[in-house]
Amino acid sequence: MWQLFQFPLCPFSRKVRLVLAEKGVAHELVREYPWARRDEFIDLNPACETPVMVDTETGTSLIGSQPIIEFFEETVDKMPMIHGDAAHRAEIRRLVEWFDEKLFREVVEPIMNERMRKRIVDRAAPDTKMLREAMRIANGHLDYLDYLLDHRRWMAGAGLSLADFTAAAHLSVVDYLGGLDWRGHKQTKDWYSVMKSRPGFRPLLGERMEVIVPPQHYDKVDF
Amino acid sequence: MWQLFQFPLCPFSRKVRLVLAEKGVAHELVREYPWARRDEFIDLNPACETPVMVDTETGTSLIGSQPIIEFFEETVDKMPMIHGDAAHRAEIRRLVEWFDEKLFREVVEPIMNERMRKRIVDRAAPDTKMLREAMRIANGHLDYLDYLLDHRRWMAGAGLSLADFTAAAHLSVVDYLGGLDWRGHKQTKDWYSVMKSRPGFRPLLGERMEVIVPPQHYDKVDF
Ligand SMILES: N[C@@H](CCC(=O)N[C@@H](CS)C(=O)NCC(=O)O)C(=O)O
Ligand SMILES: N[C@@H](CCC(=O)N[C@@H](CS)C(=O)NCC(=O)O)C(=O)O
Repeated sequence: MWQLFQFPLCPFSRKVRLVLAEKGVAHELVREYPWARRDEFIDLNPACETPVMVDTETGTSLIGSQPIIEFFEETVDKMPMIHGDAAHRAEIRRLVEWFDEKLFREVVEPIMNERMRKRIVDRAAPDTKMLREAMRIANGHLDYLDYLLDHRRWMAGAGLSLADFTAAAHLSVVDYLGGLDWRGHKQTKDWYSVMKSRPGFRPLLGERMEVIVPPQHYDKVDF
Repeated sequence: MWQLFQFPLCPFSRKVRLVLAEKGVAHELVREYPWARRDEFIDLNPACETPVMVDTETGTSLIGSQPIIEFFEETVDKMPMIHGDAAHRAEIRRLVEWFDEKLFREVVEPIMNERMRKRIVDRAAPDTKMLREAMRIANGHLDYLDYLLDHRRWMAGAGLSLADFTAAAHLSVVDYLGGLDWRGHKQTKDWYSVMKSRPGFRPLLGERMEVIVPPQHYDKVDF
């Protein structure tokens, strides 16, 4: 049985969960807060980051969202995530990196720090200046997604791909934390509404991180 | 003809160049300083980062070191970089990510900022406290590589892989900038000496970034 070490508001774990659901890979969730720096978890992943997957039968461990997803992409045919010719696959991977690195660093991580980490770990008040700045940048990212969706059916082109699930995973965490203003982003809003209605997305939207309450619209497909 | 947009001290471009050389992919180098934020370059890559590759015949563009390398891995059989079974491929990708994200963020980027960017772009003096801290962390990373090489012939296991070329690319930039103290790291030093002697590595070691002079040992295979 595969175990996935994760916590509800980890965007990289959400990305993995969406892919596992689409591919139909059975797995068990194990709650892991990386900031607790549990010794056994550091032994598993010296970077001490979620997500990590462990096959309890063979002991195989997979570390990091992209290595995990490439693993299942190579071993499970159902629902290809990185598809098309080599150039299209490069475009999918470019966008995945854009979301995992640029969107994460500029928007998701600062908003997680201010609204989740400071509350749960540091028991401190958020820095409203940092928050406002991250939300301003978030708006620029939504503009870029609108632009992509003006030219393409899905994020990376004609077919639904890992780029869509990655974007949705990150945006869903920011949305949970009240960091997105959807006004003026009809293209991305419509696309996100379709993503939210996929069966694999429902369990994610139903979960709560203790003490942090998402906005009303968060788990609604129509919002 | 493939063009590679890069500059000599960009570790991600070095990673791509080492792979192109091993695979025998003909290409032309185009010097690009991302901090100049050239309009035509932003049109090519909205993230305004090197490396980018463009096929001048078809107009295909590939953006980011990992998408570029996965592209050539899929289209050129020579010298497989991500090999073995799916679990081994996940281990190669884990280490590539470790070097591209963790080693880069904690060591390579701060040392590039202090010793290259401040000198060339900002014309400011380096912050010696920041530098010392990055070099201290570099030492911890070398310890981790020593540990890996105590247990394995190459970084990710029995075979030479992308993990080795990625580590060598990042370390070579830090070494150029005088940020590595090799004393006490015999395993990694021996491994790096083997990496340096690969034909694809020689041209890299011969190039210079204007005004910045590397230490004496930098381009010696025996150092
Ligand atoms: N590149 C990694 C990034 C994983 C990551 O940054 N995870 C965060 C949680 S969202 C983490 O564990 N951070 C360490 C911490 O919070 O202490 C991946 O794609 O899996
Ligand atoms: N994830 C990217 C990272 C590329 C990157 O960070 N490149 C640096 C140069 S080493 C860059 O262009 N930074 C922007 C700047 O210096 O203005 C990759 O693997 O290619």
